[in-house]
Amino acid sequence: MADLSELELGYDVPALPGMASGEIQTPALVVDLDALERNLARMRGFAETAGMRLRAHAKTHKSADVARLQMSQGGACGICCQKVSEAEAMVRAGITDILVTNEVRDPVKIDRLARLATRARIIVCVDAPENVEPLSQAAQRHGVTIEALVEIDCGAGRCGIEPGPPAVRLALAIAGAKALRFAGLQAYHGPAQHIADPAERAAAIAAAADVTARTVSLIRDAGLDCDIVGGAGTGSFPFEARSGVYNELQCGSYVFMDADYEKIRAEDGGRVGGFENALFVLTSVLSLPTRERAVCDAGLKALAVDSGLPRVFDKPGVRYTGASDEHGVLAVDGGELDINERIKLVPGHCDPTCNLHDWFVAVRGQTVETLWPVTARGKVF
Amino acid sequence: MADLSELELGYDVPALPGMASGEIQTPALVVDLDALERNLARMRGFAETAGMRLRAHAKTHKSADVARLQMSQGGACGICCQKVSEAEAMVRAGITDILVTNEVRDPVKIDRLARLATRARIIVCVDAPENVEPLSQAAQRHGVTIEALVEIDCGAGRCGIEPGPPAVRLALAIAGAKALRFAGLQAYHGPAQHIADPAERAAAIAAAADVTARTVSLIRDAGLDCDIVGGAGTGSFPFEARSGVYNELQCGSYVFMDADYEKIRAEDGGRVGGFENALFVLTSVLSLPTRERAVCDAGLKALAVDSGLPRVFDKPGVRYTGASDEHGVLAVDGGELDINERIKLVPGHCDPTCNLHDWFVAVRGQTVETLWPVTARGKVF
Repeated sequence: MADLSELELGYDVPALPGMASGEIQTPALVVDLDALERNLARMRGFAETAGMRLRAHAKTHKSADVARLQMSQGGACGICCQKVSEAEAMVRAGITDILVTNEVRDPVKIDRLARLATRARIIVCVDAPENVEPLSQAAQRHGVTIEALVEIDCGAGRCGIEPGPPAVRLALAIAGAKALRFAGLQAYHGPAQHIADPAERAAAIAAAADVTARTVSLIRDAGLDCDIVGGAGTGSFPFEARSGVYNELQCGSYVFMDADYEKIRAEDGGRVGGFENALFVLTSVLSLPTRERAVCDAGLKALAVDSGLPRVFDKPGVRYTGASDEHGVLAVDGGELDINERIKLVPGHCDPTCNLHDWFVAVRGQTVETLWPVTARGKVF
Repeated sequence: MADLSELELGYDVPALPGMASGEIQTPALVVDLDALERNLARMRGFAETAGMRLRAHAKTHKSADVARLQMSQGGACGICCQKVSEAEAMVRAGITDILVTNEVRDPVKIDRLARLATRARIIVCVDAPENVEPLSQAAQRHGVTIEALVEIDCGAGRCGIEPGPPAVRLALAIAGAKALRFAGLQAYHGPAQHIADPAERAAAIAAAADVTARTVSLIRDAGLDCDIVGGAGTGSFPFEARSGVYNELQCGSYVFMDADYEKIRAEDGGRVGGFENALFVLTSVLSLPTRERAVCDAGLKALAVDSGLPRVFDKPGVRYTGASDEHGVLAVDGGELDINERIKLVPGHCDPTCNLHDWFVAVRGQTVETLWPVTARGKVF
């Protein structure tokens, strides 16, 4: 737990342990601990049943405390990070098994990554042959071995080398490098996570699994094993699990669930994975200009709107209709709101929302149980 | 200047003074000091010619260093903040004349605001009679006087009491409260800032100025003076200046200019106010999967996209076409990009972009001159 003794309520921290949830200073990131724990158990159960490893993506929460819960209670074998500085923050906080699901090309960052491998198991993605030697040389300088996955473009259209022979050549180059170890394939299909229709989503992952399976097979023919075949997010993981190709799931959003993931449906029409909302931006009403319009204190600096506006939780007749820098406009279609009334918002997109805040206020029932720092907040280098 | 001696390059800070700009660790917020200084001089000249006070809005940059430049070089009489904690951060950094352009209703925040008034001139907005007594009592507890503006809804449809008689009654209530001083009117029209067509924008501000003038006149009839009639943003300030009603301009974005403000035009068809791009998100290329597609390291956690994607600066043939959490996809229509090549992005919206970062890297020419902390980063309470 963080040392809160020097911190000032309402300036440094939004709450203090033991406080009633109604006293939390707003806007604040609030975690419903009971819901979080049920989400952890649910994903653990899924991975165990599927016989897969779970490597939870910490880019969602950037919190070493949540990462530790994912590993202790949630069945995760380690975590994923997206940036070197994010991984550094996690290693400093005691996490020692990290996959950086990204390319690292800048010489300073490559050196930092190799240095990190003196303190933790570090796996990194590679999508270009020119990256192999700089990584290997940095690892040699620091007397470590860095594990490397070949990232293939399995249909996502972002990073990743072409599947098939180019990926095989890259795998062989990694395997031949002095201080690298070829550890397998990274085959994450980001855009598929948000395809609303389950059949279309299944088709996108089936296509990704196809090219991945073909590449795994060619790599095996070339004499190498893929210890890790990783990918999958909260929107698609049942499909990757079913494919028989993947063996590591990299889901992140399942711990919290955001409004954007509520829009997509599972095959039975229900919510994907059955996860609950465990993360909220708590906001207060600060102005009631008309009977139909209220203004709250959470705007663009308290929640991310890239995937749509937040959903008002458990308050029928009230909708969040517009965000400006520090204000949210609420349409009141029924009932009434009071000045200073607290409202829970389900963020449209958890990951960039968490990155806006310094603290998670972890609440059980109506009481603040603890505060967790957003350990890697702003660690975007 | 911040003490940088304990800070680690690439983890705590993106750059160090004296460094060449090509060595800055990315993504990073970069300020072009020459452009910034020209923007400061331009706005100072405008306000002096118009005979108006400038009270620069610090919500744009959240930086005490930029605020100090606005007051020392830029002709500002003080600054605006949007939240109590933002004002606290600025007072702690030595700024002593602050208007909180917002309602403060939470009892803890009201108390903090009154405490702040023991160290600085504090002005706050009020849009409801029920707010008067709590503010006055807090001011009495701390032995201070708080100045209060009546915020009217001049067409923006966010906070603000109805102009005319309701505003007059509120002004009288403030004037009658023991520890408050009635200081005038807040009449800011936010949505008007972003109306692309200058004639429509002029009409919106003309309507706002009309109801404001009428309210000022009624308040005078009731025996009170409006020392401050404040409002105006970077998109509209020439219209407020011309109205003869306003006497304080609250522009913020003019210091940096963002891509969203580039879309709107001045009456002569040129850029509003003639301000230059002085703020960039510097990013690096980390993957080149195809000849037409590059991937850079600045995504949703390094830049805000609420007002559109960033514009690529000074690099014809390259467009930023998609943001995910930590990646940006670049379409390369002509020419070539190299791995690790630095690209300057003009953020769609400066205010929430600055709030994502811990540091401004202040560059003159090709050299890092200094670093400024984003003093009030995350101060959203």
